[in-house]
Amino acid sequence: MSFSVTILGCSSALPTSKRFTTAQVVNSLERFFLVDCGEGAQIQMRKYRVKMSKINYVLISHLHADHFLGLFGLIASFNLLGRKNPLHIVGPHQLKEMYFGMDKFLNNELNFPLHFHNLNYKKQELIFEDDKIIVESFPVKHRIPTCGFLFKEKRREKNLKKSVIEDYHLSIKDILKIKSGEDYLDKSGEIISNNKLTMPEKPLRSYAFCSDTMFKEKNIGFVQKVNLLYHETTYAKNKQKQAKSTYHSTTIDAANTAKMAQVQKLIIGHFSSRYKDLNVLLDEAKTVFEKTSLATDGKQFDLSYDKENQVVVIEKQLEEK
Amino acid sequence: MSFSVTILGCSSALPTSKRFTTAQVVNSLERFFLVDCGEGAQIQMRKYRVKMSKINYVLISHLHADHFLGLFGLIASFNLLGRKNPLHIVGPHQLKEMYFGMDKFLNNELNFPLHFHNLNYKKQELIFEDDKIIVESFPVKHRIPTCGFLFKEKRREKNLKKSVIEDYHLSIKDILKIKSGEDYLDKSGEIISNNKLTMPEKPLRSYAFCSDTMFKEKNIGFVQKVNLLYHETTYAKNKQKQAKSTYHSTTIDAANTAKMAQVQKLIIGHFSSRYKDLNVLLDEAKTVFEKTSLATDGKQFDLSYDKENQVVVIEKQLEEK
Repeated sequence: MSFSVTILGCSSALPTSKRFTTAQVVNSLERFFLVDCGEGAQIQMRKYRVKMSKINYVLISHLHADHFLGLFGLIASFNLLGRKNPLHIVGPHQLKEMYFGMDKFLNNELNFPLHFHNLNYKKQELIFEDDKIIVESFPVKHRIPTCGFLFKEKRREKNLKKSVIEDYHLSIKDILKIKSGEDYLDKSGEIISNNKLTMPEKPLRSYAFCSDTMFKEKNIGFVQKVNLLYHETTYAKNKQKQAKSTYHSTTIDAANTAKMAQVQKLIIGHFSSRYKDLNVLLDEAKTVFEKTSLATDGKQFDLSYDKENQVVVIEKQLEEK
Repeated sequence: MSFSVTILGCSSALPTSKRFTTAQVVNSLERFFLVDCGEGAQIQMRKYRVKMSKINYVLISHLHADHFLGLFGLIASFNLLGRKNPLHIVGPHQLKEMYFGMDKFLNNELNFPLHFHNLNYKKQELIFEDDKIIVESFPVKHRIPTCGFLFKEKRREKNLKKSVIEDYHLSIKDILKIKSGEDYLDKSGEIISNNKLTMPEKPLRSYAFCSDTMFKEKNIGFVQKVNLLYHETTYAKNKQKQAKSTYHSTTIDAANTAKMAQVQKLIIGHFSSRYKDLNVLLDEAKTVFEKTSLATDGKQFDLSYDKENQVVVIEKQLEEK
């Protein structure tokens, strides 16, 4: 089952002619989350053929305009398209009041249930869980309360090696225990270790979204060893002062976080509109953390497995419709 | 001085990958008006190099999401860009409350004065006037109160023919009278008609915006003989029933309005997202009114003069930045 991140917008406060404001779609084992919803997110989804109807959760990191202004149009479009499935908005508590404050003038009658859930800006919290994945929020450090998000694949049932059932005459109860990871005590009293009975496990994949935030040691703990980290990089390193005063990160801040958290790959994004050539930012980040990629609108990062069952990050630029 | 209309979005309720929702910039003798402000209007202005800072007036025809959702991002961007000039929003009275209802959560301090003005949905009204142009609103017929807008060049001072001043020994007072259109009584008591003294006048240019509306006879009076009429055309003629029930127009409705109002040129726009090939709509409209053009995002219509001083509409597709 796939695990991917599709960038819809990677500009900070001001959009440019090439970069929309923050929005991305996380497909975590076919559960689709829209993470932030800058103005025009719905247009980008159409342009890059993201199936909007699959999105059941919208996570809004914080209440700055470039992270949520696309929400109202998205909800209006869902309604026009005849959506019936519930839509969950997870974000700052003010969002609900803001939405209904606007809605009262529009007299829209929604065809689908719309649920608002408040983020906890004090501590890490579980915001979604099912049999396959969990999603957590964690507080980062910005001018206003802001959360990052962590997507993790849950431990899977193990697959039994061929002929094991016959060799050991396993009952259904035995099989379930072995699939869950237990060793097996055979008829003769010998303990057969689980890895002799089961296929090697593929590592579990994870992705963390960190925007907007200044460098903060606690962030490193939250995103420890994820396969893929999206970290905001509003400024180049010569704008350290400006980054600090606006509670944003430089290339070096982002790369240091990635390095210290020992992540597999870093995506930098949320670029100030002043940067026309983003390679300046990429080169700087790479001096600290080599495995860095640039976010661009329409770029997709896919967490796959190679032949040795190791996680690899494959990136491609999606074609515009 | 130029008089042009630049289409930023020509989709109805749902944007598509090619068409943003309604927004256009009217440059009426270097006075710049943003007419409607669908989601992403500011992105389109960047893409098509429209100088945002020149816009001092935003006119919002009505309170449907596809006509105003870009306003909040536009105001936020103006502020980030350090705007100082006042911005005037002319639209439904609820817009002000809606804006400040959202703003109270954002704690934005605007660097520039923001003035809201209410449209009159009962009758035609003057909404802007200076020495060069006037702009009027007029009520159209939609599900909710909606206005169209009419931009008209004001009568210009006439230019005197060469040598007239010397031939008749004109005083400054005489010159001003002749420039304003008066005939001249010469020393011998003979009346010299104004057109013998002045250069031929170029016709005054005009543009009308009509969206959203169903066909309504009164509209014809409001847009009578304009050089350029933008009229919504949400549906093809086989969707007459749907057009009527949603208070929208078909190709035939738009073309009939143009024909009966004896306009020079018709632009059709505000297309339902169901139409991939817009030529179907164009062909239908042309059966009634030949001088019809399609709106497309980034198309500019320029009201110029030909060698005989007649108004011509020149259209071109702007390059994307």
